[in-house]
Order: sequence, then structure tokens, then C-alpha cells
Amino acid sequence: MKKYSGQSGMLVAVDCIIFGFDGDELKLLLIQRGFEPEKGKWSLMGGFVQPKEGLEKAAARILKQLTGLEDVYMEQLYAFGEPTRDPAERTLSIAWFALVDIHKYEKQLSDDYHPEWVSVKKLPPLIFDHRHMVEMAKKRLQYKAALHPLLFELLPDKFTIPQLINLYQAVYDKKLDKRNFNRKILSAKLLVKQTHKEKANSRRGAFYYKLDKRKYYSNPEAFMSFLPTRNIFS
Amino acid sequence: MKKYSGQSGMLVAVDCIIFGFDGDELKLLLIQRGFEPEKGKWSLMGGFVQPKEGLEKAAARILKQLTGLEDVYMEQLYAFGEPTRDPAERTLSIAWFALVDIHKYEKQLSDDYHPEWVSVKKLPPLIFDHRHMVEMAKKRLQYKAALHPLLFELLPDKFTIPQLINLYQAVYDKKLDKRNFNRKILSAKLLVKQTHKEKANSRRGAFYYKLDKRKYYSNPEAFMSFLPTRNIFS
Repeated sequence: MKKYSGQSGMLVAVDCIIFGFDGDELKLLLIQRGFEPEKGKWSLMGGFVQPKEGLEKAAARILKQLTGLEDVYMEQLYAFGEPTRDPAERTLSIAWFALVDIHKYEKQLSDDYHPEWVSVKKLPPLIFDHRHMVEMAKKRLQYKAALHPLLFELLPDKFTIPQLINLYQAVYDKKLDKRNFNRKILSAKLLVKQTHKEKANSRRGAFYYKLDKRKYYSNPEAFMSFLPTRNIFS
Repeated sequence: MKKYSGQSGMLVAVDCIIFGFDGDELKLLLIQRGFEPEKGKWSLMGGFVQPKEGLEKAAARILKQLTGLEDVYMEQLYAFGEPTRDPAERTLSIAWFALVDIHKYEKQLSDDYHPEWVSVKKLPPLIFDHRHMVEMAKKRLQYKAALHPLLFELLPDKFTIPQLINLYQAVYDKKLDKRNFNRKILSAKLLVKQTHKEKANSRRGAFYYKLDKRKYYSNPEAFMSFLPTRNIFS
């Protein structure tokens, strides 16, 4: 089939904003860029989309290459396309954000990229428009986590309510009313109480909980129960 | 500066999903594609991103070219990048959705594209993955309109509550409880009652309202008052 005439292409990259939670702080996985321009500077994980590769595939491939992780929560964030965003050549970037369980993350085999978890509150200068991408990803995370039980992706399989509260506090950078949060989260009936306790952080200990995965995955829309639609359509 | 070696570019297009409301039905502005492949078939409005043009600029330019409209509500929807989505050549498409006041829309000067408003309930077959784009845009519109007073972008400056209800019913394809909706929308204090009535559709008539634009634009986040965050952080 005839190609389009008179049109010129541009490079297309994907960049991944990878969030993790270490029990205390919300963190971002950064690398030191391995090639010019800006070689050695802090950067999001990224790479070029290959000729026969879709965008989702490219993002998953890059995540796998650099972290060893597969099947993690990933969502397209935004396409960044300012003509001068990359000084070397016109490059469009499709940014994705990913939520990973930091404990499942294995140091990648190669040390070429020097990946490091950095607190979102103490980010170093980032190349190009990566800082802008991170800010947008943080906002999207806050927005969505207010409507959906998204943040469980950042936790290990078993977690305590104090850990969960710490996570919400880190994402929103705010102190929460613990009793109120406790009541709300349990009334959502998403959690299954375990029989044993975590005892490292307090004498009384805190029961472990697991996410009810069947409920969680079966109908994500159902969790939008706080939306005004419910009132409008009642 | 040296270019990236060994990387090949691809074409990048923008496609616009343009919603309008005629008082009764939610509509989409479609054109008949003016070039091969799929010449003459129904298509979203789109075009290629130019070498020195950002994505937002490209979307605005195409909207202007094809409809004459400027300064309308526009939001990036998603980047579509399946390698075979365009049979002629690898082309990435950044889809945008736009909300326009159908009454401000002027037929464009040229007749080349045969633009037409088509009911979203009776869409003809569309080229490539455009149907998929439309479905995603409809979902995004429903999602966001439940949280933000977005749909006013589809109305003329002066409108009546019955018109507003018709609009919400069209977007969600559902019957609403009119009294309940009325109460909710007035309690949001976004509307300013006018002194005169619309009398074409009923003997008693219905008062016109205008949007309080200062409130509307000053702090869009403030309208997320139904979100659980409010409870979590209270």
C-alpha cells in the first residue's frame, strides 16, 4: 500500500514513572541515563518504541528489562510532544505510570543503569521534561486513589492497617484521622483479616490483612461508590 | 547535537473526538476522509503532527481548520499505537476529545470534508481504530462528568434546567430523577438564575440559567466535593 507522501516521522519513546512504597515513604525508581545527551544524569526509565511494537508492549518490555518485573499495574499517563523536549532529535514520549510492590523488585542483572529508589519528596534534578511527568503522575495517583482501591498494588500480599494508613499519608502527604480511615476502609469490605499479627512495630501487634482479590478484580467500577452519579441516578 | 543512531521514526497524527449536544442527543462530528487509504469513509477529524508543532497545537489547529472553532474544551484522551492500526504506514495517533457548543459551530468554508453531526447512538462504521477511540472517549466523558461540571461546555450560554437534564440523560443514556437532579445541581451553587424564561417547550416556561464562570474556572478541583478524600481527610 502507498505510503503517505510529504510527511516526516519522529522518534517515539516510552518513559515509565514507577512508584513504590517502603513502608514509610513513596518512592520513585530512577536510573542514570546510559547515553548522550545527558548521559549519567537522573532519568525515568525509558526507551524507544520499536518498529513492530505497540505502546503497551514497549512499556512492559522496558519495565521488564530494567527491573525484572512483569504483570504489574501500569497505566498510560500522557503523551508529551513539545518539539524541543529532547535536544538531540524530535522525540515524542508516551509516559506510563506503574505501581509495584517494592519487595518484589529485584535488582536487575546488569549494573549499567544504576537504578535507585528515591523518595518523591527528595528528587534530584531530572532530564528533559521528566520532572513534569512525575508531577502529573503524582496528581493522577492521588486523583485515582481517592476513587479506586489502587494503592494496594504498592503493598505486599499481607499488610497491616497501620501500614495502609502510612501509605495513604505518604501519597497525599497529609496526616489522616486514623480511626476514621480505619472505619472507612473496613466498611468497603475489600480486606480479609488474617489470624496472625505483625509484632515488630508495637507490643500489642497489628493483625495482618489480605486484599480480597476476587472482589478487587471482578468489578473495579463498583468501587466508585462515592460518586455523585449514585445520587443523580438514584 | 548528534542524533540517536539506529532508531527509526514513525508518523504521528492527532484525532479529535468532538462531542456536541443538540438539545436532545449527544452527537459526534465526523468527516468523510479525503485521502487514501479508506478515502470517502467516515472518520474522526485528524491530521499529521508537523515537525515543529506540539501535540496540543496540532489538535487545536485541526479543530480550527475543520470546524472554525477556537478556545474549546479539549483534553488528551490516549495514545493509540498498535503497529498495524493504519495499513498504509506505521502511524501513532494521539486522540483528543473536545466538547463544543453545537450552536457556535459554523460550517467550515470548504466542503472538502463533508463534516456531519452524527448521533453517538447511530454511528456509521468508522475507519481504523476510531470506533475504539470513540468508546473510550464516551467512558471518559461519563467518568469525568460525574466528578466535574464538565458538561456545561456542551450548552449555550443560557440554558434551562430541563435542557441540562436532557444533556445528562443523553450522556449517561439513562432516565434521571428530575426532582433529585434539580436539587443537587442547584445546591452546587454554580448556576445563576436569569430573570426571563424559555417558553417554546412548555406553557409555564422554564427559567434560563447561566453558569457562574468565575466559580467554574477559579478552582475546578473544588467541585470534587463528593470524593471519599473528603471523608478520609476530615
